[in-house]
Amino acid sequence: MRAYDLIQKKRDGAALSAGEIAWLVDGFVGGLVPDYQMAAFLMAVYFRGMTPEETAALTWAMVRSGETLDLGPLARDAVDKHSSGGVGDKTSLVLVPLVASAGVPVPKLSGRGLGHTGGTLDKLEAIPGFSTALSEAAFVEQIGRIGCAIAGQSAALVPADARLYALRDVTATVDSVPLIASSIMSKKLAVGSSAILLDVKCGRGAFMKTEADARILAEAMVAIGRAAGRRTAAVISAMDHPLGRAVGNALEVAEAIATLRGEGPQDLEGLCLALGGWMLMLGGRSASPEEGSEELLRRLRSGDALRKFEALIRAQGGDPRVVEDPERLPSAPCRLPVPAPASGVVAGIDAEAIGLAAMQLGAGRARKGEAVDPAVGVVIKRSAGVVVKAREHLATIHARSEEAGLAAARQVAAAFAIAESAPAEVPVIRGVIRW
Amino acid sequence: MRAYDLIQKKRDGAALSAGEIAWLVDGFVGGLVPDYQMAAFLMAVYFRGMTPEETAALTWAMVRSGETLDLGPLARDAVDKHSSGGVGDKTSLVLVPLVASAGVPVPKLSGRGLGHTGGTLDKLEAIPGFSTALSEAAFVEQIGRIGCAIAGQSAALVPADARLYALRDVTATVDSVPLIASSIMSKKLAVGSSAILLDVKCGRGAFMKTEADARILAEAMVAIGRAAGRRTAAVISAMDHPLGRAVGNALEVAEAIATLRGEGPQDLEGLCLALGGWMLMLGGRSASPEEGSEELLRRLRSGDALRKFEALIRAQGGDPRVVEDPERLPSAPCRLPVPAPASGVVAGIDAEAIGLAAMQLGAGRARKGEAVDPAVGVVIKRSAGVVVKAREHLATIHARSEEAGLAAARQVAAAFAIAESAPAEVPVIRGVIRW
Repeated sequence: MRAYDLIQKKRDGAALSAGEIAWLVDGFVGGLVPDYQMAAFLMAVYFRGMTPEETAALTWAMVRSGETLDLGPLARDAVDKHSSGGVGDKTSLVLVPLVASAGVPVPKLSGRGLGHTGGTLDKLEAIPGFSTALSEAAFVEQIGRIGCAIAGQSAALVPADARLYALRDVTATVDSVPLIASSIMSKKLAVGSSAILLDVKCGRGAFMKTEADARILAEAMVAIGRAAGRRTAAVISAMDHPLGRAVGNALEVAEAIATLRGEGPQDLEGLCLALGGWMLMLGGRSASPEEGSEELLRRLRSGDALRKFEALIRAQGGDPRVVEDPERLPSAPCRLPVPAPASGVVAGIDAEAIGLAAMQLGAGRARKGEAVDPAVGVVIKRSAGVVVKAREHLATIHARSEEAGLAAARQVAAAFAIAESAPAEVPVIRGVIRW
Repeated sequence: MRAYDLIQKKRDGAALSAGEIAWLVDGFVGGLVPDYQMAAFLMAVYFRGMTPEETAALTWAMVRSGETLDLGPLARDAVDKHSSGGVGDKTSLVLVPLVASAGVPVPKLSGRGLGHTGGTLDKLEAIPGFSTALSEAAFVEQIGRIGCAIAGQSAALVPADARLYALRDVTATVDSVPLIASSIMSKKLAVGSSAILLDVKCGRGAFMKTEADARILAEAMVAIGRAAGRRTAAVISAMDHPLGRAVGNALEVAEAIATLRGEGPQDLEGLCLALGGWMLMLGGRSASPEEGSEELLRRLRSGDALRKFEALIRAQGGDPRVVEDPERLPSAPCRLPVPAPASGVVAGIDAEAIGLAAMQLGAGRARKGEAVDPAVGVVIKRSAGVVVKAREHLATIHARSEEAGLAAARQVAAAFAIAESAPAEVPVIRGVIRW
């Protein structure tokens, strides 16, 4: 086999066999296929796409490039989840303990944030002492013991994905549905749970800007899961405004705690109950997603969900007292209000602009490897649809310095659209793709 | 500027500015833009194409990557020519002395063959003593003195082309009209003649398989020439059958000598007179291409053309006696006839198959840097349209060994299509694109 022939075949619109794709991925990881040939191949994929069979073969080739987790007897009941991320997206912090509190094991490997969206690991590390570096054995043992664990992905898992992503990132080949879908699903398949729930976001604050694009990506991922024999469903949810009210690491942990206590913002609680309902159904704990959501609402009210989060924090070395006393989380020295420039109704809040403001405060990183500030961020006081008066506080900035806070306040004020009438309310959940 | 942004811009179908293209080419040659980014860019160009302005900018950026020839006062009158090559294509051997014999200076830089088509340098080096390695000064001086020179291209000329071509060659991005056109034209512009004639071949034995594709390439190249202020024309010619009768280095030199003597095969003589007529017109020596062709026919008959070839050989260290005595050219020890398998009419001769047979005899090279055998090759005895009887000789194989010759004879026999009736005659010249 020659890389040239495979590039040409894809360039000309033909489908590669599973053997050809495996050869290409193995050759790339092994150094036999140079970067420049893989770059040309990826650009050809960008233009020509891949069939579902090719995408499944690519995903498996990536999984086989490294080690896989052995969940043992847990694999059968465990339900993994993936969110395509977005501004203020702390669903993993809520969902993992919430679903585990209902008896469904949740093995969750997460990543760090880049750009205007935060990462679950960064958020959890705002909890004093919390460690996301777990060995495979510790990860599996913890899930067996308390029903859940959240850790960073080991480099030994799916090394082909990291290498391919690094190349895509510098060759303008990130935005390709089969490449995105195989990248996400390879990491889910490597974890080994028998069921996977995908939360695919769309809108201004998400990677996929339109609902139609999100649906295409969701269908590609569900097809991969189905081909791999995993029970897989994808929920498409709107991310035009930030999710919940807090954007920033410790601020989001505090909001997740409030939500697990049954006191969270309505949009966040609603999305977590909906996603969690599907997870309970995928895990065989409920007959329908609606029944699952009802069960989870009971777990919020009973305090089971919050106690599971406390157990998770304790198991991973964090200070469990933050659950009862969120003041123990890091806090920023400067708090600045963002006054409304005019009276009217909040017609929209640009999630991307809020995310960038939070990043510039230090809550996110512009480049890989940068440290993040756990304390800083933005808390929204007036959500979309709410009537406001001029100079009323739209949001609060949590900043390291007054100078940084004033710059962020200007950005956040500009992110609010104030109109004369309220916008039509659109549901957060836009659709579900099932296996 | 960032290579990423330029890849993305081309990927999304936008046109790059001349400054952006120059930055990319300079960065690539200077090592700032890595191979993998250029490979992704080239694949995006394959899918998105380039505007005439972008193609002209790419061509100039490549020219400026290295040195250019200084033809001095010769530049004004000199006419360069390029042929896209094909099996049995010895037009340069005939045209360079023929056009020079009519008073138009011809500066010709040529290449070596690869695959089933031979290179002009390989053919000339079949003449004992002939050197194609001329310094720039010697090249220009010789043109001033005898009106023509044929030499290999120095690595200092258009280094970006060699580097880009090497990358295209391994990333399946050779077949892109703007990339082909800019590659060819950059080398013509670097030589510096004020006029350029392009011979773009189409058909089974050529790089462009269809007349429509050849026309697109010809138009792209003429547009580059026009943008650069060079008088440029392109003749589109058919290459379904081998051109002339001889395929192989010394065999083609002998056929070129016969043609310069006025005794060559009709198709080759006709094409050379037509192309040369255009060169005389471009060089200001004739009012029309037809008038130019008539002038050249007189030069064939008077012996001026043959004497110019003799002078060219002498000037470049070759044995000029080959002109009067082609037996002095290297000859192969084994000659084998190729008998016709049946009676009928020669309906077609597959040029590519003949070229591959000659290559396997040793006349061409499968890989860069391999030596070629000057003596071996194929001579066609029965051209397309000729009535043949079974076992009559269709061709003669000139081989180094009987074993190699028998293998080639089988390939050559299979390249002949024998039918019941003669095919419709199609003219060799299919069209002309003028500046």
